[in-house]
Amino acid sequence: MKIRDSALPVEERVADLLARMTIEEKIGQLVQLFGWQVFDKEGAAWTLTESFRERAREGRVGALYGTLRADPWTRVTLDNGLSPRAGAEAVNEIQRYAIEHSRLGIPLMIGEECSHGHMAIGATVFPVPLLIGSTWNPELFERMCKVVAAETRSQGGTVTYSPVLDVVRDPRWGRTEETFGEDPHLVGEMGAAAVRGMQGDRLDAPDAIGVTLKHYVAYGSPEGGRNGAPAHMGLQELHSVDLPPFRRAVEAGALSVMPAYNEIDGVPCTSSRYLLEQVLREEWGFDGFVITDCGAVQMLEHGHNVAASGAHAAALALNAGVDMEMSGEAFARHLPEALSQGLTDAAALDKAAGRVLAAKFRLGLFERPYVDPDAAERIIGAEEHRALAREVAAEGIVLLKNEAGILPLDRGSLKSIAVIGPNSDRMYNQLGDYTSPQRRNQVKTVLDGIRSQVGESVEIHYAPGCSVKGDSREGFGPAIACAEKADMTVLVLGGSSARDFGEGTIDLRTGASVVTDAPTSDMDCGEGIDRAELGLSGVQLELVQQLGRLGKPFVVVYINGRPVVEPWIDEHAAAILEAWYPGQEGGNAIADLLFGDANPSGKLTVTIPRHSGQLPLVYNSKRTRGKRYLETDLTPRYPFGFGLSYTTFQYAGLRVYPEVISPNGKATAEVLVTNTGSRAGAETVQLYVTDKISTVTRPEIELKGFRKIWLEPGETKTVTFELGEEQLRLTQPGNVRIVEEGEFVIRVGSHSAEGLEAGLRVSG
Amino acid sequence: MKIRDSALPVEERVADLLARMTIEEKIGQLVQLFGWQVFDKEGAAWTLTESFRERAREGRVGALYGTLRADPWTRVTLDNGLSPRAGAEAVNEIQRYAIEHSRLGIPLMIGEECSHGHMAIGATVFPVPLLIGSTWNPELFERMCKVVAAETRSQGGTVTYSPVLDVVRDPRWGRTEETFGEDPHLVGEMGAAAVRGMQGDRLDAPDAIGVTLKHYVAYGSPEGGRNGAPAHMGLQELHSVDLPPFRRAVEAGALSVMPAYNEIDGVPCTSSRYLLEQVLREEWGFDGFVITDCGAVQMLEHGHNVAASGAHAAALALNAGVDMEMSGEAFARHLPEALSQGLTDAAALDKAAGRVLAAKFRLGLFERPYVDPDAAERIIGAEEHRALAREVAAEGIVLLKNEAGILPLDRGSLKSIAVIGPNSDRMYNQLGDYTSPQRRNQVKTVLDGIRSQVGESVEIHYAPGCSVKGDSREGFGPAIACAEKADMTVLVLGGSSARDFGEGTIDLRTGASVVTDAPTSDMDCGEGIDRAELGLSGVQLELVQQLGRLGKPFVVVYINGRPVVEPWIDEHAAAILEAWYPGQEGGNAIADLLFGDANPSGKLTVTIPRHSGQLPLVYNSKRTRGKRYLETDLTPRYPFGFGLSYTTFQYAGLRVYPEVISPNGKATAEVLVTNTGSRAGAETVQLYVTDKISTVTRPEIELKGFRKIWLEPGETKTVTFELGEEQLRLTQPGNVRIVEEGEFVIRVGSHSAEGLEAGLRVSG
Repeated sequence: MKIRDSALPVEERVADLLARMTIEEKIGQLVQLFGWQVFDKEGAAWTLTESFRERAREGRVGALYGTLRADPWTRVTLDNGLSPRAGAEAVNEIQRYAIEHSRLGIPLMIGEECSHGHMAIGATVFPVPLLIGSTWNPELFERMCKVVAAETRSQGGTVTYSPVLDVVRDPRWGRTEETFGEDPHLVGEMGAAAVRGMQGDRLDAPDAIGVTLKHYVAYGSPEGGRNGAPAHMGLQELHSVDLPPFRRAVEAGALSVMPAYNEIDGVPCTSSRYLLEQVLREEWGFDGFVITDCGAVQMLEHGHNVAASGAHAAALALNAGVDMEMSGEAFARHLPEALSQGLTDAAALDKAAGRVLAAKFRLGLFERPYVDPDAAERIIGAEEHRALAREVAAEGIVLLKNEAGILPLDRGSLKSIAVIGPNSDRMYNQLGDYTSPQRRNQVKTVLDGIRSQVGESVEIHYAPGCSVKGDSREGFGPAIACAEKADMTVLVLGGSSARDFGEGTIDLRTGASVVTDAPTSDMDCGEGIDRAELGLSGVQLELVQQLGRLGKPFVVVYINGRPVVEPWIDEHAAAILEAWYPGQEGGNAIADLLFGDANPSGKLTVTIPRHSGQLPLVYNSKRTRGKRYLETDLTPRYPFGFGLSYTTFQYAGLRVYPEVISPNGKATAEVLVTNTGSRAGAETVQLYVTDKISTVTRPEIELKGFRKIWLEPGETKTVTFELGEEQLRLTQPGNVRIVEEGEFVIRVGSHSAEGLEAGLRVSG
Repeated sequence: MKIRDSALPVEERVADLLARMTIEEKIGQLVQLFGWQVFDKEGAAWTLTESFRERAREGRVGALYGTLRADPWTRVTLDNGLSPRAGAEAVNEIQRYAIEHSRLGIPLMIGEECSHGHMAIGATVFPVPLLIGSTWNPELFERMCKVVAAETRSQGGTVTYSPVLDVVRDPRWGRTEETFGEDPHLVGEMGAAAVRGMQGDRLDAPDAIGVTLKHYVAYGSPEGGRNGAPAHMGLQELHSVDLPPFRRAVEAGALSVMPAYNEIDGVPCTSSRYLLEQVLREEWGFDGFVITDCGAVQMLEHGHNVAASGAHAAALALNAGVDMEMSGEAFARHLPEALSQGLTDAAALDKAAGRVLAAKFRLGLFERPYVDPDAAERIIGAEEHRALAREVAAEGIVLLKNEAGILPLDRGSLKSIAVIGPNSDRMYNQLGDYTSPQRRNQVKTVLDGIRSQVGESVEIHYAPGCSVKGDSREGFGPAIACAEKADMTVLVLGGSSARDFGEGTIDLRTGASVVTDAPTSDMDCGEGIDRAELGLSGVQLELVQQLGRLGKPFVVVYINGRPVVEPWIDEHAAAILEAWYPGQEGGNAIADLLFGDANPSGKLTVTIPRHSGQLPLVYNSKRTRGKRYLETDLTPRYPFGFGLSYTTFQYAGLRVYPEVISPNGKATAEVLVTNTGSRAGAETVQLYVTDKISTVTRPEIELKGFRKIWLEPGETKTVTFELGEEQLRLTQPGNVRIVEEGEFVIRVGSHSAEGLEAGLRVSG
């Protein structure tokens, strides 16, 4: 059989296989089931459910979703879930059943969530993408992705539903944390790094998985910041802002793409032939497969109301270019009817099934369907992976303010430190959404990190003060008492995307864990948790203001999933670190930064406004963005690209050569960057381009390049950027991408609001 | 000469005239000057400036802007401005000079601002469009427009830069007050009424003026509610929401259209050939002329940056279909150069000049260039016009809350009333933007209205309490003292769009006028005054809360230009009247309503949110609008279409017949509405349509008809609505407007959040 002959081209193997398949089997390839539901577990043993066996035998399932996923939604816990080894064994058994008991022996595709680490028990929990973006270090992210892929594939996971390439335009949106920020170029670079890191050189390697680019497209521009709400934009904006990161990652070889829940200008992405066929496949040459988001097919009927029946909805999606339905029954239930009613046809089905099968061939599933549980046990959560998580966190945390160099703290001179605030010692609050249950000792909180790094000479006084959301002030008194007796106060505030992992709550006076059946939730961020304003939730501001009355300097560490707008804290805190959700090693990374073992180099990838009412506020808005509000002008509190270091950098000698190029020519921008401080540090050199006049309007400045460099004190490096079509071109109506003649301004600097400038002319 | 022969068709007269004109003269027709600058006034005498004379002699001016406009921007005051008679005489003299001293004797087009009454000294000041929309009474607005046109034309004004047909989607925008609200159908009906009322049967009638539909288009959807910021939308939304009102008014015969400042998806409206030629002229058959907004041509070069020079900008606008530049020098200065550089051509110039000339012929300017100053004096500000202003105000003020029927107040039983608040007695605060200077006795404030209607038996205690914006609390004490001794408190709060008319300020303790060179401004709304949040400005809320501590019921009257979000007041006020900016008779109208001489019948045309962070929040958003925010759900505080009456209405017996129609068929919806209370009153019966399934997404409900009816107590009326293409069709991609087969739900009710429902099927 050709399908067993790995020497043959994939197309040939797919064609051969399709020719042997029934319609039901073809539809089966388009069907994904919830993977954690295909087995029953009792004690250490599991058995495959009869309903799964039946579907597998009949070839009516092609893939599983989240077989290893553990979280409150799946109800998979540390107690009833699978260890790394057991997970690998379970997936092997599932695959074995599907292969050995079905007519054609087609292996299953095992899809997993790996937004910031595999969402399985024991896997390494990295910082969330918003922090990863803030590293401005795609190479580091690529290394992280290799680790995530290795951990996932070691258990038999073959595809991940990441990276999220949404360009976020309104941080009220609860999924802001899952994005790399507001800039298309940066998001695209991170997307390409994800493809390289996850997919490696060959998808069939034992440490590679296929990526799924999501959410295609404009899901980061929901009306009012409300999850899944319509994106209001025209084609020009779509092709200039939201599509480019996807294009970049498709060109890097992404295996899969997921259409977004939202509609754009009246057309749901899930049924958009324009997006899925014309743009993705015809214009970009995408050769992978398209999988819906969960429940997206039904949403065409109930929600978007563009389909009159389940069969109609299934046909709309299939005809638009969808190949697989994520963990839903719409395709399985309705495609037969859609075919018999003529709403779709056999050719469309063959195309979709063929694309799924091609992906399975490319993933090596026919040759190597099983994994080695020993390897899973060895690889997952390995010490070096935790070290990498710490490194990523330290590189992505952003120092927003550092008055009079209060940071780094001097371990030697301090006798006592007060660690105060609701996010000081609550492990789930620092992990972000899409996280699996954790054992307490796997996660390092800020309190853990500080405690382990100061040694015995420094006294630590801890008090939570308050919770993230509640209105109880009973912890204020103990918190103030802590601060009063300490030399220095570190306030750990922010938000939380933690769902209810059953960890109970804490005593606000003592910080002690409290077991309760009715825990108070800290969650004010994460999928489905959108906010109307960006201030701190609960009574946190009040706590800070009461502490402020002591007249002692304090350092604020924010742990949260979207920008915080708190002018009082901006003004009164001596230093502010924005740590986003820094992952399981977050507390160590934060302590590394607080005490100067690491030097902050993170930079914002989202604009932090002065007022929630300024939204939308992005650095790359059009020139005619309006003048001001009655309450505030339109400047941000902290601009895109901004982030301080414990050292200082000087930019000099910017030149662009040649000064005149043709539209398809290339120039070079060169700048000298010097570390003018006394510590080694890293700086992200940012290149912004201004097109002075263009046939369609463009933003005043657009990020078109960046380079993170490490400099010893006194060291100077020359940084060069290429300036060519990629950096200069725009998208004209009709989706024509060209470099227009005229004057450009090249700005190179430390963030979006400052830099050296030089001119470049495109002519003839 | 054919141009003098009014029996000839306009086209022939235009062609004949064009054939005689030089290029300079043709360009001249495209040029508009600031009209108040063409003469110098000293005492009662004026003289035409030499620069105007020269341009007029040489045919280098075609129109004047705001010759009679008076306001702080023009620096035309009650002292140095023109009385109604003098204005007419001045315009006559200007016209006479232009006609008698130029080679071809072409009269000037005199363009004026008439947003809510002619913005000239002495003219009647009607309520702003936001209030007019709230009347849901296009016939009443048509009568108002006839009056405005008669007042304007009596002084020689021939064109108005209204109506504003922007569909407002974000009330942070300071020009919200200038719109009819958030619904395309209602805005369109008001637009058509404006055309009928202003233009009458013949544009050359002595009481008719040409309208200018503005701002074409999507100017009501600026990013962040910031004036002139980009509109983010695709063609589908544009053709479904923002274009329809313009189409309706173009079909009603509008003479002129003004492109908006903003860009849409990268293309400035001013240079959009798609909008100005393809949609407006080719698809809709518009046969009038297009005039830019002020400075819009320069903005193509500086702002939008789509033009490399002044000549390029002028050519872009002309080539796109612009015919006249509003009060700017870009066309005059740059078109000769643009022609010689080949950026545009003689044919484009001829088209534009021809359209301007055609408008002048249609306006009868060649036959009747002069007006009768006696008539101007008689007509302008006539008593019956003021009565109409009072009627419009009373019909458009919205009763939002009336707990336990506290309103209407009983003049007989009350012994004293406290009138408190910054908008109680400041005349400019109730007039809105685009208002001319007023003599104090021309305007009736709430204090005036209450005083004049209660007679001597009721004591009135007045205290401003605070100003709109300032933070002074020095007036709190006197205000509380007033409320303490009164039987009833009427609090007049809100905002202001009043520019500095030099009226000084008021003593916050006594309410007395204070002359000062540095007046505190109350302005928190109006053109260019956008807000970041929708709460009351200044310390107004604090004032109310302090008064609330007295434990006595109070009535709130809001006077402002955009929705107020004040949950505390919503909860604690016994009654709330939203009066928008009710015009010069506003105080009388409010008193009419407070004491029950008029029965409230206004209904909201904008959704009032619960929280500023809910924005954008409109009743006709798509079904997938998101679920909720952490802080609030997505329901409004007061829904679109909502407004209480002193009586009650019952809806019954909704039926739709036939129940099945063909796509081009017609059905009728019929409902019985009964006045079930004890007072006569008016009810606006609203028809909403739901398209259950459609090829492109549609809002859950869309207003497709309304009828305002007057009912005596116990009276029942049958209201019918036609259901046909206009009510059922949607716009598919590619701008195809069709009625799709399927199920519709017809809802008829009192506002957007309630109603009776019946089905309608479109089939075959």
